[in-house]
Parts: sequence; structure tokens; C-alpha cells
Amino acid sequence: MPTKKPIITLLTDFGVQDHFVGVMKGVILSIQPEAEIVDISHNAPPHDIFQAAFLLKNYYSYFPSEAIHLIVVDPGVGTQRRPIVTSSEKGIFVAPDNGVLSYLYAEGNVGDVREITADHYFLKPRSGTFDGRDVFAPVAAWLAKGVGLSSFGEPISDYKKFEIPQPSLIQSGAWKCKIIHVDRFGNLISNLGREQFKEMLDASEQRRFAFRVGDHTISKISQTFADGEKDEVIAVFGSSGGLEFCVNQGSASAITDVRAGRDFLVKIV
Amino acid sequence: MPTKKPIITLLTDFGVQDHFVGVMKGVILSIQPEAEIVDISHNAPPHDIFQAAFLLKNYYSYFPSEAIHLIVVDPGVGTQRRPIVTSSEKGIFVAPDNGVLSYLYAEGNVGDVREITADHYFLKPRSGTFDGRDVFAPVAAWLAKGVGLSSFGEPISDYKKFEIPQPSLIQSGAWKCKIIHVDRFGNLISNLGREQFKEMLDASEQRRFAFRVGDHTISKISQTFADGEKDEVIAVFGSSGGLEFCVNQGSASAITDVRAGRDFLVKIV
Amino acid sequence: MPTKKPIITLLTDFGVQDHFVGVMKGVILSIQPEAEIVDISHNAPPHDIFQAAFLLKNYYSYFPSEAIHLIVVDPGVGTQRRPIVTSSEKGIFVAPDNGVLSYLYAEGNVGDVREITADHYFLKPRSGTFDGRDVFAPVAAWLAKGVGLSSFGEPISDYKKFEIPQPSLIQSGAWKCKIIHVDRFGNLISNLGREQFKEMLDASEQRRFAFRVGDHTISKISQTFADGEKDEVIAVFGSSGGLEFCVNQGSASAITDVRAGRDFLVKIV
Repeated sequence: MPTKKPIITLLTDFGVQDHFVGVMKGVILSIQPEAEIVDISHNAPPHDIFQAAFLLKNYYSYFPSEAIHLIVVDPGVGTQRRPIVTSSEKGIFVAPDNGVLSYLYAEGNVGDVREITADHYFLKPRSGTFDGRDVFAPVAAWLAKGVGLSSFGEPISDYKKFEIPQPSLIQSGAWKCKIIHVDRFGNLISNLGREQFKEMLDASEQRRFAFRVGDHTISKISQTFADGEKDEVIAVFGSSGGLEFCVNQGSASAITDVRAGRDFLVKIV
Repeated sequence: MPTKKPIITLLTDFGVQDHFVGVMKGVILSIQPEAEIVDISHNAPPHDIFQAAFLLKNYYSYFPSEAIHLIVVDPGVGTQRRPIVTSSEKGIFVAPDNGVLSYLYAEGNVGDVREITADHYFLKPRSGTFDGRDVFAPVAAWLAKGVGLSSFGEPISDYKKFEIPQPSLIQSGAWKCKIIHVDRFGNLISNLGREQFKEMLDASEQRRFAFRVGDHTISKISQTFADGEKDEVIAVFGSSGGLEFCVNQGSASAITDVRAGRDFLVKIV
Repeated sequence: MPTKKPIITLLTDFGVQDHFVGVMKGVILSIQPEAEIVDISHNAPPHDIFQAAFLLKNYYSYFPSEAIHLIVVDPGVGTQRRPIVTSSEKGIFVAPDNGVLSYLYAEGNVGDVREITADHYFLKPRSGTFDGRDVFAPVAAWLAKGVGLSSFGEPISDYKKFEIPQPSLIQSGAWKCKIIHVDRFGNLISNLGREQFKEMLDASEQRRFAFRVGDHTISKISQTFADGEKDEVIAVFGSSGGLEFCVNQGSASAITDVRAGRDFLVKIV
């Protein structure tokens, strides 16, 4: 379904107490007044490329495929790290080349990844500390004006990507998995997908299982948050497709004392 | 005054650090690219239906009457609680049936309250944990495309509403009232309306009064915040029509140690 | 470049947990449904006119010159402080007359500053505590409808402005400067401009210098954040043109224990 207004989504770690986000919006609207700017979040954890990559993976595919997704989580601003632009069937992406598009690359169907070198699109003088203003916002706005991706620079093949954490078999019937995000409610979102878990079960005869997260053991899959008793940690396949540990109207993170990055164990018994 | 762009306002408790709000915006714009999405707040207290209801009461009537108000504070997601849609002279409302529209119902002139059952409007597969994405956002977007309310389901009469807290007479000349919201500045917003207070006074001969909130006693009505001395707790009929306890450039909540939900006393002496 | 949609930017200290921002957006869209509302920040520090003025200084010039900038940081609401409207080559400004436009005035080229007295544009009844809703939002919306500035009131000359803090020579080769803002990353943004610093150096023969901030001494200028070692406090001329003290992927404010408003020393040796 075509959209008339070009959409530019913004994901940054700039927070909402400074002028940075406002500056980027001003730059965009000065170049392309018709742009529809959509705030995703400006509260990505500061400098946390992995978390930003996870967020991006979860929202971009819900937008119209013409949408331009601007991601500015950029601890390497001012260094040799390159600004890049790419596209897939699901959107156009402008970001620093620091791995923040790793999930996108892993999902495949990504076109050329181009280093943005056409500096006549940049704001001048280019500060060493705010490429969001001087590079990324203008490029997104010119894309929204109809400038093609190839106008911004040549394809590169050595763009950065981190390895997406996957469940790993540590002994027969036991896998080490990872909590990759903790949401605002304290739900622990993991890297264990529904299909992966089904395969683990199918490979076993018993089809009984236990998750060990912090000091808690969970041995069934619930359908929704409300299936849990007060303060009970339950396991649900959540809206982003991964297993989540949750507490009904409570914080699983607080109750288990587990944060993003922690491992947990899956045992098929 | 007609508006060309269909307005969809968003009130959620999703916070601004996750992908949830971005996902909902993507879903809306994929269905109705012309929608004008207006962020009200994504920081409603988690799972707090009463606070969300209070916020809604305070903003909806300021919007054009064609605006669609989407409220996703939904502790019962995944359970049997129903999604509903309704309208009044002042707007169209999409929400879970958990009482979050209680003030709206109390204000009257609400049309049919319909259970949303037309699941061909939903995103599939429907997750058990994110009806904001799978049910509420698509329904709001289809409303914004012009689909009529009756297309989404049949009227119901047993929709949930909580009782709006009212001042209660506890003995002659004494009423128990309630702090129903504490705003960002620490102002204590109560359920005592200007007219109600006038009636209390009119029923008395003395027309002298005292408010007792925490350990503080206030015996006059001020016109604005600046009427107070430093750290003095004053009483003002605030912008939402209720009596508020305030401190000039300070936090009445901190100074009185009173939070939302606490009672206070009105004495006419 | 002309913009079709009238832009109204919002800077407030209302926070994002209440209904205040939603109410203002509703008022604007009810008067001018075509308005493009752009959130700058609603997390300006409560009642902090100086910080809001600093933020405004940093974003307004990036917007199209027709943009209307609405600033509601208004500790004097309900008092005799006047609402004002003015314009420059870079935008139109609606704000309380409390000094929040001081940087704008200092930058010059500001047209008449008008007291807003045309109360037929206000919402009635006007509350004593929410001019954002009753005065500022409607005036911004009517401006966006094309009403001229002169329709809102007469020019005044005694509008409030605070003195912009400037580096001051305290003895030969030594200047006292000020940290005027601490951003979300903990960078300390100062009032020492690049040109001012160059002049200080040029007046010396040695051209060696030292900055003394908290207990830290910095004696070179770095180009970007990444030039610093772990936990090293470095000095950079930042994106807003002032000298900033920064720590690579860390908080200079935490490491130096310095907050906004603190002085620091420049010595040319």
C-alpha cells in the first residue's frame, strides 16, 4: 500500500532532555518538509549497539516498505567508522556502520550496503561529535526527497556485523541460551525461538523440559502473563517470537535478579 | 471544524525504551498511511487502569471530535477480557474492556459500547501478549480508514466500569475526599470539584473551611501556584477542575508525603 | 524552502507522564488540524528557564524559518508575567515573558516582541495554572492558521532577559568560564566558544593552556569523544559550538562530579 508522505523513523540513544532530537527533526524538515517523522525511541541504552539492533529487528518490518529507518546509536562518532545506507524488501536503513544492522543482515534479502561518502549532502561544517545532525538526518531527508541510494556512495562488503547470539548445546539435552532484552515491565526476552525449542523437544523422547533462569526453575509454557500466580515466574513465547520469562503484573527481572546479557539453561529431561 | 488527516492518539504504559510503541505506529501507518499519530503518553503507570482513565478524562475533549483515541493499558492481555470500541460526541475510543473508559461512561452521551470480534481486522497470528499490536492498533487504523464502528462487533451492556471516587460525607460538615493523581511537579490532584465544594460551603452558615492533607492544614483557596510562600502547601482549583494541593516551585507530594490514592479531609467549620 | 504544513515545535517541562502535553496537542489540532506538531522535549528541567533557553538556542535555527516554536517553561503561570510572541529570520516564538528567549534576543535580528493581550484567542475560562492550554497553544495554532503577529498585541520594550554568562578575565591569562548544560551522556557543555578561545590564545605568546574543571586538568583539545582513554576527561569543541568536557563512552559529569552552573578555569600559560 503506497504512502504519500515519506516516513522517517527515529531510533536514537539521545534521550529526551536535550536538544539533539529536536535538531535532527529540524534538519529533516528543512530538507523535506513533507517527511512524516515517527519517534520510535530516544531512550535506547547509551552506546549499546546490541540493544539498538534488537529494537530495530522488532519494529522495522511493521512499517510500510518505503519507510526510511534512521538509527543513531553511535559511540564511534567522529572516528573512521563509516556511515552507511542500505535497503531490504521491508525498508530503507541509514545508520553508522557499527553492527546496529546485524539482525537485518541475518534476516537476509538485504541489498547493497553503501558507505555514505557524498558529503555534499552533509551539513557543513561537520562537527566531530554529532553526525546525527550533520550526516544521518540530512541523508534520511534526501532519501525522503527521492534521491536514490546509489547517489550516496559505493557498495562495501566489509560492513560490521556482530554474531547473533544463538542457543548452544552444552551437553546432551542441555542448551545455554541468553536473555537479550529486558523490557519496561521487567519481562526477560530471550534468544530461544519457538521453532528452536520445538526442535529441541522433538529430538528428545521425554518431551519434558525445565528452564533454569537465575535461581528459578520453570517447567511449562504459559500462554499469557495472566497465567501466572502472584510473583510466579512463568515462561511465554512472546510477541517478538522468543521465549520470555514474565511475572503477572510484576517484574521477572527484579524477582529473578537477572539482567540483559545473562545466560539461562534449557534442559530436556 | 473538520480535519483532513485522521487523528489517532496513543496512551499506553509501554514506556519509551522498548520497540512496542514503534511497532504500533508501524501497524497503523501500514494500514492507514494518512493517519496523524499523536503521542499523549507512553508513561502511564504500568497496569494502572485508574490512572490511565484519569489521564484520558483530561485530554480527549480537547481534540477534534473525529479523533480516534487508542488506550493500551492492558494488564489482562491474553485473557478473556474483551477489546472494545465506542464513541461519544467528543471522540472515538478503542481500548481493552477493563474500566479504562470509566470516566467517559460517567460523563454520559456515550454511544454503543461494542465488543471487537471482527478478527479479520487483526494481525495474524495473534500473540497472547501484545494486543496493542495485533488488535488495538489495526482497529484504530481501520477506523481511521473509514470503517464504521458497527463493523467491528456487536454492542454489549456488561462492559466494565469502576466507580468514580466521590467525596463522601463522614459526619456533619466533614467529607472524605481523595487524591486521584500526582502530576510531574508533585501537585496533588483531588476528586473535589469546584461546584461540589461550593455546595459544601453553601450548606454551611459559617463558610469557613479547612483541608487536612497528610499533616498539613490549609484553610484558604489560592488562585495560582505563585500565591504560596516557599514550601507552603496551598490549595488551588486546578486546570482539570479539581482541587489541587501545590507548592510554589516545589513538590506538594514530597512535602506532605502523600501519594495518589490517599484520602484527605474537608471540614466546614 | 517553503513548507506546506505549518510546523509547531513544543518544548515544555511538563514531563511525559501526565495529560498536559496531550491537552496542548488537542487544542492545537482543534484550531489548526493541518499543524505538524514536533516534540522537541517535554523533559526540560522543571521551572528552569535558563536550561530551556539553552535548549531553544540550540534547535530553533535548524527548522524552516516559518516554524512556530512554542516554549512552555513557566514557573510564573497565573501571575502578572506576560505571554509574548516574536519572530526573527529563523522562526516565530511563543513563550512566557520570563527570559526563556534571552539567547534569541542576544543573537539579534529579532523583530517586535509583543505582549499577547488579544484574549479572544484564549481558551475560556482561563485557568490560573495552565496557560500552556489556555493561552500558548491556541496562540501558536492561530499563528499556524495565518493570523499575523500584530493581531495578538502591542510591542513591548521591557521584556525580560537574563544576562548570557560569558567567560570573564579574572587575572592575566586566566578566565572563569561556566558549565551551562550537562547532556544525557554526562558531557559538560560550557560557555567558552571556539572563537573566544582562539582570541585568548592569540593574546598569549606561549599558546599553551590548561582547563581546570573540578579536580581535573586538561591541556589539549581533542577532536571527538573517541580520542579519550577509558575514564579520561577530554576537551572537545562540541556540536553547539562551545567547549565540552567529555569521557569516551562515560560520563564526564560523574567522573568530575561537576553539574550545570559550575565554573571552571582557563589558564593560558
